[in-house]
Amino acid sequence: MGDNITISQSELIALVNQLVDQKVNARLADVEASLKSIQGTVGTLSENCPEDRATLVVFSGEMDTLFAAFTIAVGAASMGMEVSMFFTFWGLTALRKDKTFSGKAVGEKMVAMMLPNGPHAVPTSRMNMAGMGPLFFKYLMAQRNIESLPNMIALAQELGIKMVACEMSMGVMGVTRAELLDDIDYGGVATYLGDAAKSKITLFV
Amino acid sequence: MGDNITISQSELIALVNQLVDQKVNARLADVEASLKSIQGTVGTLSENCPEDRATLVVFSGEMDTLFAAFTIAVGAASMGMEVSMFFTFWGLTALRKDKTFSGKAVGEKMVAMMLPNGPHAVPTSRMNMAGMGPLFFKYLMAQRNIESLPNMIALAQELGIKMVACEMSMGVMGVTRAELLDDIDYGGVATYLGDAAKSKITLFV
Amino acid sequence: MGDNITISQSELIALVNQLVDQKVNARLADVEASLKSIQGTVGTLSENCPEDRATLVVFSGEMDTLFAAFTIAVGAASMGMEVSMFFTFWGLTALRKDKTFSGKAVGEKMVAMMLPNGPHAVPTSRMNMAGMGPLFFKYLMAQRNIESLPNMIALAQELGIKMVACEMSMGVMGVTRAELLDDIDYGGVATYLGDAAKSKITLFV
Repeated sequence: MGDNITISQSELIALVNQLVDQKVNARLADVEASLKSIQGTVGTLSENCPEDRATLVVFSGEMDTLFAAFTIAVGAASMGMEVSMFFTFWGLTALRKDKTFSGKAVGEKMVAMMLPNGPHAVPTSRMNMAGMGPLFFKYLMAQRNIESLPNMIALAQELGIKMVACEMSMGVMGVTRAELLDDIDYGGVATYLGDAAKSKITLFV
Repeated sequence: MGDNITISQSELIALVNQLVDQKVNARLADVEASLKSIQGTVGTLSENCPEDRATLVVFSGEMDTLFAAFTIAVGAASMGMEVSMFFTFWGLTALRKDKTFSGKAVGEKMVAMMLPNGPHAVPTSRMNMAGMGPLFFKYLMAQRNIESLPNMIALAQELGIKMVACEMSMGVMGVTRAELLDDIDYGGVATYLGDAAKSKITLFV
Repeated sequence: MGDNITISQSELIALVNQLVDQKVNARLADVEASLKSIQGTVGTLSENCPEDRATLVVFSGEMDTLFAAFTIAVGAASMGMEVSMFFTFWGLTALRKDKTFSGKAVGEKMVAMMLPNGPHAVPTSRMNMAGMGPLFFKYLMAQRNIESLPNMIALAQELGIKMVACEMSMGVMGVTRAELLDDIDYGGVATYLGDAAKSKITLFV
């Protein structure tokens, strides 16, 4: 079959390499196309897939809702998640050091009076019978050796939970940085959305 | 070692191709198996990975909670996210044009009276001292050049935020389409779940 | 060009294989490196990408909020999602069989009195005019053939929704297992976080 050939070694190598290239190109073309397609898909997934992170909007200022928010946040941080808490409106209560009335316009004084006194003095959302609810709640928790709200806030700071005061809410409600805890961050809705969009758990409390 | 061979060119090519196939098959088999396995995993991930999207249930009807919901929604839409808002129960307040009492059964009239008057007249959840809270809130926001709630709702519509009125809630509360803003969508829990399951951020406000 | 060679078949095969190895190694090295990099990325994504699952914290105990929570949960389960509900604080109301006062300390009796009577007797968060709201709500829902709250709770159990009572809340509020529905689970914040971190939809109601 066919004429027998006489071939030099370099010709043989060239021939073999050429044949290999054809084969390998044909076979790898599919693999490389699949690979490229997967890389594209994985790139999009990487942009949209959450990180091991939880982000909470803390809107309510009652002791029970704050307590629930901090329980979830501290729990998540203890389990190794990165946690961000954004305090807006009544939630700013949790970050207050104490009452500050000096140098405020009348309207802002009114809001300051309506805002409770920092985490020691927040009302519960239900049990607030003649102001007794929060004390009672504290008593029950102490009896059962559960951390108090101020302790949980301190714990949150120790655990590196990112606590952000909403500057727009501060503006609307006339709350200044001097009234809030040290070592907190300040930001707006864009800061919140940046963290929330990377989070497995997003809550509005 | 061994007998020298005499070979035709076509025999040489056939021999080389056969050897190449063996080698390449062996080597590519692993790669192709890995590739197939990754494609399977990536397929599952693609079904479950969120899109750049935020979905809110708006259940509360107070001015401050509505304001928080619209701030987040408008912020997300401004940052390029697709945003859906599902208005249920008291949240339907945000979508009301104005009071409509005509042609209702007594029970529905009662609900209509309990539902505030559309976004201009919603109570705040806390500061509502003798009805003064919402006005005061508007005054504070105007003083600080922050968008009012009706402006934010208009902005949400302009930004293409999908606003869906919950038809079951409308049924329970006796609210008709004629009472709600034009250019909104209508749907149920399945509509909500479809959007929420694709979202990075899911909130109940 | 070059000297013609005389070669044995085994020498030819060895030569060809060697050439193929060089070529294939060079070409596959890239593919395998890309594959390995993708496998790493996909592994991380798999850990962080949600499953087809929804997880709700049920904190509020009013009929309307409970109704909204169960509507979403039952809807999601009906669409094939795995659903977990974590009942904390006032949300425990939904799981109560009936009032149980016997053998409690005074403080706990107070909480028991403040907690409504199980899902038949929960207040609505708004329409509660002289206690009439919840009855009225039930009347409206019956008129429109919508499932009542106790029916929805039964449906949730039938659909295999995981209902977890928060043991810390039970402790704080003096609620015992005997007071709650059979066939529910018990857990804490770690149980919740484990499920929530795998969920597409996370809500705080």
